[in-house]
Amino acid sequence: MKNGQRYEPLTVPRRVILGPGPSSANPRVLRAMSLPIIGYLDPAFFEILDEMTGMLGELFRTEQRAFAVAGSGSAGMEAGLVSLAQPGDTVIICSYGYFCERQILMAERLDLNVVALRTEWGKSMDPAVLAEALKEHPETQLVVGIHAETSAGTIHPIAEFARLAHEAGALFMTDVVTSLAGCELEFDAWDLDYAYSGSQKCLAAPPGISPVALSERGLDYIRGRQKLSSSWYLDLSLIADYWGTGHKPHHTAPVSMVYGLREAVAMALNEGLAQRWKRHEANAAALRAGLDALNLEMPVSESDRLDQLTIVRLPVGVDDAKLRTQLLNEYSIEIGRGLGKFAGEVIRIGLMGESCVPANVFALLNALEKTLPEQGFEVGRGAAVAAASAQLARNPSPLYSA
Amino acid sequence: MKNGQRYEPLTVPRRVILGPGPSSANPRVLRAMSLPIIGYLDPAFFEILDEMTGMLGELFRTEQRAFAVAGSGSAGMEAGLVSLAQPGDTVIICSYGYFCERQILMAERLDLNVVALRTEWGKSMDPAVLAEALKEHPETQLVVGIHAETSAGTIHPIAEFARLAHEAGALFMTDVVTSLAGCELEFDAWDLDYAYSGSQKCLAAPPGISPVALSERGLDYIRGRQKLSSSWYLDLSLIADYWGTGHKPHHTAPVSMVYGLREAVAMALNEGLAQRWKRHEANAAALRAGLDALNLEMPVSESDRLDQLTIVRLPVGVDDAKLRTQLLNEYSIEIGRGLGKFAGEVIRIGLMGESCVPANVFALLNALEKTLPEQGFEVGRGAAVAAASAQLARNPSPLYSA
Repeated sequence: MKNGQRYEPLTVPRRVILGPGPSSANPRVLRAMSLPIIGYLDPAFFEILDEMTGMLGELFRTEQRAFAVAGSGSAGMEAGLVSLAQPGDTVIICSYGYFCERQILMAERLDLNVVALRTEWGKSMDPAVLAEALKEHPETQLVVGIHAETSAGTIHPIAEFARLAHEAGALFMTDVVTSLAGCELEFDAWDLDYAYSGSQKCLAAPPGISPVALSERGLDYIRGRQKLSSSWYLDLSLIADYWGTGHKPHHTAPVSMVYGLREAVAMALNEGLAQRWKRHEANAAALRAGLDALNLEMPVSESDRLDQLTIVRLPVGVDDAKLRTQLLNEYSIEIGRGLGKFAGEVIRIGLMGESCVPANVFALLNALEKTLPEQGFEVGRGAAVAAASAQLARNPSPLYSA
Repeated sequence: MKNGQRYEPLTVPRRVILGPGPSSANPRVLRAMSLPIIGYLDPAFFEILDEMTGMLGELFRTEQRAFAVAGSGSAGMEAGLVSLAQPGDTVIICSYGYFCERQILMAERLDLNVVALRTEWGKSMDPAVLAEALKEHPETQLVVGIHAETSAGTIHPIAEFARLAHEAGALFMTDVVTSLAGCELEFDAWDLDYAYSGSQKCLAAPPGISPVALSERGLDYIRGRQKLSSSWYLDLSLIADYWGTGHKPHHTAPVSMVYGLREAVAMALNEGLAQRWKRHEANAAALRAGLDALNLEMPVSESDRLDQLTIVRLPVGVDDAKLRTQLLNEYSIEIGRGLGKFAGEVIRIGLMGESCVPANVFALLNALEKTLPEQGFEVGRGAAVAAASAQLARNPSPLYSA
């Protein structure tokens, strides 16, 4: 305490964030977060929204609606469920991970008639399971399936899910929190109705705002529904109207988060989406080469796995919490724990957005080489870093600007 | 476009924000917004939350729960309505402004049995009206009354509202979006059950996070309710559990917004609450002295008015949109329009947080002196600025640090 200043300025540790998200934010994004505030009804702010509508459309690959929900990815999730179905409606939720189960919890709270299609964690879901369920439930209003399941490290054939849903007369909603800007996503070509994401994964912005895309078909449904959605804050039609050409006032927009998201999307488009996907692919391959050299098992098959998030089975005798705590305290590296069925059995390594660079791959492999033997799991010293290096020599990670 | 960089860094205009909110953010707060990201389950982040719990308690003057909802003030509003009553429950909503009407819209969407107590805009509500309604509705679960109505510029006797609600066995929820850190507020002494605020008004942080206080009685109700709230994202008990000592995971926290809020609360506590209220009082008095000298009418009486937000009746012949557009384009000053019943009839001038300094009072009065005569409303040149200056000489605005 000095001159009556009881609270000194906040400081935070410098972390290497390699968990399931948030990932690190790009420096240019962080700089934008500290720009002065302007009003959420200021014509200058509307100009930013208008530019972003086009930029987000380019990112989602859509010419339909693209905007942002003022909350975390879970707010984007709830906005879809509360907007695209009404109490009593049948909603089929494909479930192959922890975040699918969160969708089920939300849908049950909303009094939706939930049909949970539970398939094995760690494997892509076979669309035939959905086709069967749609036959049993021809009354289905909405089908929900996650594109990239962050808890299980798996990717799923959502274009096929969407096709089946539409054949049955249902809408299709998906979660692209971990996939957007990290791997291929085609909102229009895949005929999706609603896709929500997060700012804090492959986009390299701080968490707290959820970029989304919405089809005109989905918006028409919301505008025509008999009973308004139970949420005013998360009603997608009201948010779309604020972002739309009329800029109809809704709640106060999170101005700084919008600045940060704008800058993050600008960085992704400047880098080029194909180049950015390539960066995620190359660094994930290097990480896997290193983990292989450590004799660590990665249970998800090559066809089903994500590049953004790698699931690693904990070796027998290695304690999850002890390992993660040691990585955090001695190396300032954060990795993720297993969730749900995978709790205590796996660790999750994210390489997303700003975090997705060779330096971080090497740092983590080096730390694992040092820490695993202390828990009785012997590894060859230097082998993992060397294997990652060799892999990057074969398939280099593209550089990018900040 | 240069070196393949299609999108240049974002820039924004430098505004003097004197509307109903957001107000300008403190430079130290903006600096905190650009700190590196750390994980929302990182022990270092939990330390920040733990410190903030105490700081927010000091701000709300409570030893009960104080935390933040990850959304704008409207998210804090909806979180209270969805958490503290169940479909079919009787909820009395005192209505004397636009944001009270928003509460009614939200409550109706939630299938609450809404009893709307509508009283005159621009006047503090007489608690006798509430006492009468509670007699007619002894089944009432929740009473809702806004402390500072930003649309009408009025303050209301919420301590008395809370006493009456509790006498009738109901909970009491209030909106302190515009009052927190700008005028007296005593969560525990006034026996409130839930108060939600915004970051972007008297706290001088960016919009997008809603600091709240919740009584143990309110939390017990949520934990014991028969049917879970329809919203998972805005369930106050889940958010309280994340902020509480167990830090039970919920959605990803908006890390940068939490940094910014921490810094804003630190600044408010460093300044001292009584000193901060005094700053709002002194600058509002100077503004009113200047507006008086311009012969502008302020329809809210001295006992009912806010210092944070001053309502001014538009003189006959002066066009609302034209005046506000001119102030924005020629002076870069934002003021607010009238809402609801007051649309087109009044302008709203906010002096909150970082925006609440003599320089801004002078800048606005100078601009009004120049622009009003162009619309045929003659004012004495220099009189308003001189009157504000004289008022500040009698009752100076305290200085504060950044």
